[in-house]
Amino acid sequence: MTAPTPRAARWADLTFPDVAALPENTVAVLPTGAIEQHGPHLPLSTDLVTATEVATHAADAVAADGRADVVLLPALAYTKSDEHAWSPGTIWLSWETLMSTLVDIGRSLAGSGITRVLLVNGHGGNAALEQVALRELRRRFGLATFFVPASVGGEVAREHGNPSELGLGIHGGHTETSMMLHLRPELVHMDRAVRRVPERLDRFEVVGFGRPASFGWLSDDFGPDGHVGDPTTAGADDGRALFRAAVDQAARAITEASTFSVT
Amino acid sequence: MTAPTPRAARWADLTFPDVAALPENTVAVLPTGAIEQHGPHLPLSTDLVTATEVATHAADAVAADGRADVVLLPALAYTKSDEHAWSPGTIWLSWETLMSTLVDIGRSLAGSGITRVLLVNGHGGNAALEQVALRELRRRFGLATFFVPASVGGEVAREHGNPSELGLGIHGGHTETSMMLHLRPELVHMDRAVRRVPERLDRFEVVGFGRPASFGWLSDDFGPDGHVGDPTTAGADDGRALFRAAVDQAARAITEASTFSVT
Amino acid sequence: MTAPTPRAARWADLTFPDVAALPENTVAVLPTGAIEQHGPHLPLSTDLVTATEVATHAADAVAADGRADVVLLPALAYTKSDEHAWSPGTIWLSWETLMSTLVDIGRSLAGSGITRVLLVNGHGGNAALEQVALRELRRRFGLATFFVPASVGGEVAREHGNPSELGLGIHGGHTETSMMLHLRPELVHMDRAVRRVPERLDRFEVVGFGRPASFGWLSDDFGPDGHVGDPTTAGADDGRALFRAAVDQAARAITEASTFSVT
Amino acid sequence: MTAPTPRAARWADLTFPDVAALPENTVAVLPTGAIEQHGPHLPLSTDLVTATEVATHAADAVAADGRADVVLLPALAYTKSDEHAWSPGTIWLSWETLMSTLVDIGRSLAGSGITRVLLVNGHGGNAALEQVALRELRRRFGLATFFVPASVGGEVAREHGNPSELGLGIHGGHTETSMMLHLRPELVHMDRAVRRVPERLDRFEVVGFGRPASFGWLSDDFGPDGHVGDPTTAGADDGRALFRAAVDQAARAITEASTFSVT
Amino acid sequence: MTAPTPRAARWADLTFPDVAALPENTVAVLPTGAIEQHGPHLPLSTDLVTATEVATHAADAVAADGRADVVLLPALAYTKSDEHAWSPGTIWLSWETLMSTLVDIGRSLAGSGITRVLLVNGHGGNAALEQVALRELRRRFGLATFFVPASVGGEVAREHGNPSELGLGIHGGHTETSMMLHLRPELVHMDRAVRRVPERLDRFEVVGFGRPASFGWLSDDFGPDGHVGDPTTAGADDGRALFRAAVDQAARAITEASTFSVT
Amino acid sequence: MTAPTPRAARWADLTFPDVAALPENTVAVLPTGAIEQHGPHLPLSTDLVTATEVATHAADAVAADGRADVVLLPALAYTKSDEHAWSPGTIWLSWETLMSTLVDIGRSLAGSGITRVLLVNGHGGNAALEQVALRELRRRFGLATFFVPASVGGEVAREHGNPSELGLGIHGGHTETSMMLHLRPELVHMDRAVRRVPERLDRFEVVGFGRPASFGWLSDDFGPDGHVGDPTTAGADDGRALFRAAVDQAARAITEASTFSVT
Repeated sequence: MTAPTPRAARWADLTFPDVAALPENTVAVLPTGAIEQHGPHLPLSTDLVTATEVATHAADAVAADGRADVVLLPALAYTKSDEHAWSPGTIWLSWETLMSTLVDIGRSLAGSGITRVLLVNGHGGNAALEQVALRELRRRFGLATFFVPASVGGEVAREHGNPSELGLGIHGGHTETSMMLHLRPELVHMDRAVRRVPERLDRFEVVGFGRPASFGWLSDDFGPDGHVGDPTTAGADDGRALFRAAVDQAARAITEASTFSVT
Repeated sequence: MTAPTPRAARWADLTFPDVAALPENTVAVLPTGAIEQHGPHLPLSTDLVTATEVATHAADAVAADGRADVVLLPALAYTKSDEHAWSPGTIWLSWETLMSTLVDIGRSLAGSGITRVLLVNGHGGNAALEQVALRELRRRFGLATFFVPASVGGEVAREHGNPSELGLGIHGGHTETSMMLHLRPELVHMDRAVRRVPERLDRFEVVGFGRPASFGWLSDDFGPDGHVGDPTTAGADDGRALFRAAVDQAARAITEASTFSVT
Repeated sequence: MTAPTPRAARWADLTFPDVAALPENTVAVLPTGAIEQHGPHLPLSTDLVTATEVATHAADAVAADGRADVVLLPALAYTKSDEHAWSPGTIWLSWETLMSTLVDIGRSLAGSGITRVLLVNGHGGNAALEQVALRELRRRFGLATFFVPASVGGEVAREHGNPSELGLGIHGGHTETSMMLHLRPELVHMDRAVRRVPERLDRFEVVGFGRPASFGWLSDDFGPDGHVGDPTTAGADDGRALFRAAVDQAARAITEASTFSVT
Repeated sequence: MTAPTPRAARWADLTFPDVAALPENTVAVLPTGAIEQHGPHLPLSTDLVTATEVATHAADAVAADGRADVVLLPALAYTKSDEHAWSPGTIWLSWETLMSTLVDIGRSLAGSGITRVLLVNGHGGNAALEQVALRELRRRFGLATFFVPASVGGEVAREHGNPSELGLGIHGGHTETSMMLHLRPELVHMDRAVRRVPERLDRFEVVGFGRPASFGWLSDDFGPDGHVGDPTTAGADDGRALFRAAVDQAARAITEASTFSVT
Repeated sequence: MTAPTPRAARWADLTFPDVAALPENTVAVLPTGAIEQHGPHLPLSTDLVTATEVATHAADAVAADGRADVVLLPALAYTKSDEHAWSPGTIWLSWETLMSTLVDIGRSLAGSGITRVLLVNGHGGNAALEQVALRELRRRFGLATFFVPASVGGEVAREHGNPSELGLGIHGGHTETSMMLHLRPELVHMDRAVRRVPERLDRFEVVGFGRPASFGWLSDDFGPDGHVGDPTTAGADDGRALFRAAVDQAARAITEASTFSVT
Repeated sequence: MTAPTPRAARWADLTFPDVAALPENTVAVLPTGAIEQHGPHLPLSTDLVTATEVATHAADAVAADGRADVVLLPALAYTKSDEHAWSPGTIWLSWETLMSTLVDIGRSLAGSGITRVLLVNGHGGNAALEQVALRELRRRFGLATFFVPASVGGEVAREHGNPSELGLGIHGGHTETSMMLHLRPELVHMDRAVRRVPERLDRFEVVGFGRPASFGWLSDDFGPDGHVGDPTTAGADDGRALFRAAVDQAARAITEASTFSVT
């Protein structure tokens, strides 16, 4: 980088000699979003907005504190949204295409002298394939690879969540809607928000979300509205708290990634 | 099946008219193992043995009780063991090959009239890609797809685990070694068992196993022995308890899978 | 779209019912950029900036005039920059990955009810493969497909170009540098700009840029600086004129695309 | 192997240091079966049983005699059964998937220090592709590669065959049924066995099985029963003789493979 | 080559030691044709004939003059004719297959000691993908790669063209028909020739052939006859002139390719 | 075809309406050759010449006699010659590329109304993969598919062969050299012909050419000359006899293919 800055370097803004001069152990941060249906009330960009905002705020916070060297990559807008393939608006890559994209990016980063990469992921449907990619990039290019979601669990999730969702607010529900009310309120149509909680899932004890056994699902298995959860209780205050926690989590992930090793 | 039997039908033993006559909603169970290094003390087949034994006992238990119609497929021995690619003995499929295999199997099952499929997985390194496959088979072939690991968490894991592993006994440690001491004691070399717990991981708070942020790893990142955990405390009694819990969990997964729907 | 607006609809901002309600013959506009070295004086994002700005201004102009229905897709940042694979900073997709991405996007658009797609391309290295994609999307999905570069030839190019480049200012030369001085002056390092015109090419009569016979090249065939052309004469005024002409050209392409048919 | 044994080493039972210590020129034996329809009277596993039994008995015989160092790999159950794709019960891999699997296995064996590999194949439909794989593994990994069928021709085949099959007992006929009556009599349904000999093929002189010109066939070209041949004359005595000859042939193939070179 | 000859060496006629002895900087010339519909009046081989004749005459002319060392490869008959996929007679490779073919040929040529390759292309539908291939072969195998069409533009094209085609005689029109009347008159059915000029295209100013914006087309977009242009004015004299100009252009391309470098 | 002819129709010479008018059950004949090293004495085109000449003479003979409707496709020059990849001059396709090519051709033929396809193969290294293709084209496109080699076994082979080759004259030996002395004497360098018979192979009883067990080989396993066999005894008379027998065999294959069915 040509001059010290209070925010994280943007890969896209750099020249190629700037990249060559990045400090050893710089963490390259790649936001991965989605362009996919999120119910009638949320924009297609919901996951892209969330991933990009969390990654950007986290990278800037780390850079501002000097906790680690960090560089922010342009986000992947189009990813693996095959569970929403039925819906107008969804632009989905096949698993082969997304893996190939991640492999190509990893190859390019390694060829640029980068040694540490963190994916900040806004779309749950990418998580499993990105785990596969973490290992592939580590094995083929020697990269230290990391993944953090653009959302949080635990205490904050409970405090600012909607318990009546029964843990089933996985797509376009209270949490995502609240975060968008904080980040892009002009794009949220609360007048179209309806509760869609698949309460029947509670009948099963072993199979289900967060249970030992998982199942393959498409979003229209749950009905024609496309979301799964209860957006009617969403609010910008919950959104702000959830977003700040996610930024903090991502910032700590960047910081730890800069020195992480297992031995 | 031509006649009622006290154990689950074996797909391989059936003729093709037998398959055509399987009852609607029969759950097809596919064990997925691995042939990969498990440290100096465990055989390459550890995950294959575990997955096959858990799936078989579970399917037979379900059939014996008449809880569901179930048919057991031949196990996949060779799977995605790329994290052990460095080691003699590991036979690993690339992610493309394993996905193609699972897609081909799913296509064949759907073409055979099967509508419900459960993977019983003995190798953690397969889990993420199998999640991707669950969705792919659902979308392309309309199959109801399920996944259950051949191991348990929770209470039983705590009671019969080794707390000094700090939750890091992920490969060839106390749990897997105990299960093999129960299932195949003649193949376990306790004289070669050594403790290999990567305690340094405890320094990190956000990145790690079971933490919000994950990392890509190869088993030789942890050292040349190949396992990660403490097999020295393993015992057949713990193994028996862990195995029985895994069988019970898989049996319940089969049962729920036979009637599962989200709406 | 929920309400008339003076600017073009942004796909990412829409909900899925909004997409389903787009008028027949709406032209979906996809900017394709690049993240690749552009010499020591220009940022890696040069082509992404150019494509995105041209596409956005053109789409908004068309929407403002009501010349056609148009919707703007999120840009592709990472594309086929294999000619710059040698350089730090370049993030390049293989031809298979970019074609797969374009095919997946085309499939998704067709599945969303879109019938007309225009690529606005900022990176010359994409042009050939995108021609292949135009036909592939037309054959496989029935889409009417179009391509327009984010730059102009002809009169304007001559008037605002640098004749001493001998027509060889193909990458990071007078034209691209001028456009960036207009669009993102803060990212241009004129102090690092040096003339790099491969005058030797003038010795050949049949083989060369803009000649009947073409040749395969990598940017380091021309030397270690990475650009090909003369940025030292670049200026924001030329950039503004070139940009306005490119926007006008793209706006007319959108308009014609909305009613284009060959019979 | 930690200790001398009267039977061949089982790859799956070894630890990774055991594999690293295998003697130079050890022959790795891979049985390749199939899970595919074999008519109404034979189980889907027919080829898997045959390949596995022949390979195991042959490897053990070689090891017992000390004729060569040999190690037995887990069988491939699922292979290229596309000619039976129409039938319930058939689980078939595409040619790409099977080749990828064989390439991945070959790469892994070479990476384990193995230099000689023998496929013992129970399914005729694999033979051509496995020939392709022999060369691919030799070229890419330097492996000495071999193939032997789990069945015999010549004298024994004539003596224990059924001449009324006119050489057309290629799938589920007298030979395979006899071998299964010897190996797994409990899985053979002789009450369902019917003669299905495509005598029309005898009209052709150049095109046909065992003739200079071959033809592409699917098993349902021959009718809905799925088998081609006459199982009604099958018997366990013929099966035993045919099996013993196949074991002897495979054992000699292993022995020759251990020292084979062309110059 | 075993003896000096007045014509260019034919790769296919050489032995392998002959190839190993080819002079440094020998240009390998690969004609790429097509087998595709060309309207009711022209044979499927039109582009194959044209590419092969142009390449052969050009290579022989260069060899006769001693302008460069040149070797002629067997033509590719089957290429990417997807725009004519609808028509009986068209044999078309997908883009993946043609790229794979070109990559395999490039790899083989580089492995044979060749450093310079020129494609002489008779089928416009190959041009874009061959541009992609030029770069791929340069990057992966270090080959200097070149492309020249088997047709000409400029003065000669104008003089011997049909102006009433409005520049739209792109497939089976005046030019191709004339060349075939010169090269293979016995295969041209002038009695079936009809004018098919898509005059509507003239209404557009930005989108069109030879305009800034291009469009994806299939030949049946223009109607059921398959050709686009006016063959009724074709003649052998025009064909001879066009052919000679194309041969001359290709010969000059070979000559320049033998010494071409950009620095 | 526009007019009856004494020779077989050439696909390439036809127009697309001609193809559409081909009689039902017309056999499409595709010669598959190779461009690969054949020792120091034979041209790279040996297999291409042989396949093309055999196919052409056979098709013309069938057409002349009116035994069947037949159409001759342009030959595949470049095929799977990976066993000669080490040698200058060899142009080899990977197995994926050749299979993709054959699949694309099969798809195109089926789309052209063709129902019967015969491969006439001059290169032994293609045989196994072409067997795989026969089935693939039958399953995917419903084509009746056939394969015949461009050489003969049996009586004629014995009478006009060289017994001192011990059956090992598999590449560039007495037979191929004799056929080329008949077909293209000007391309045969008998002065460079040397005997290269791998007599050591005779020590093995089960593994070998024409034995129950096969092995994977590359031609340089046999030494640096590239051929395997004894060309020194070759003669045009033997070549003529072998060629005529191969033509006769192929003609009978075409004839039988035109009416072949198994039931």
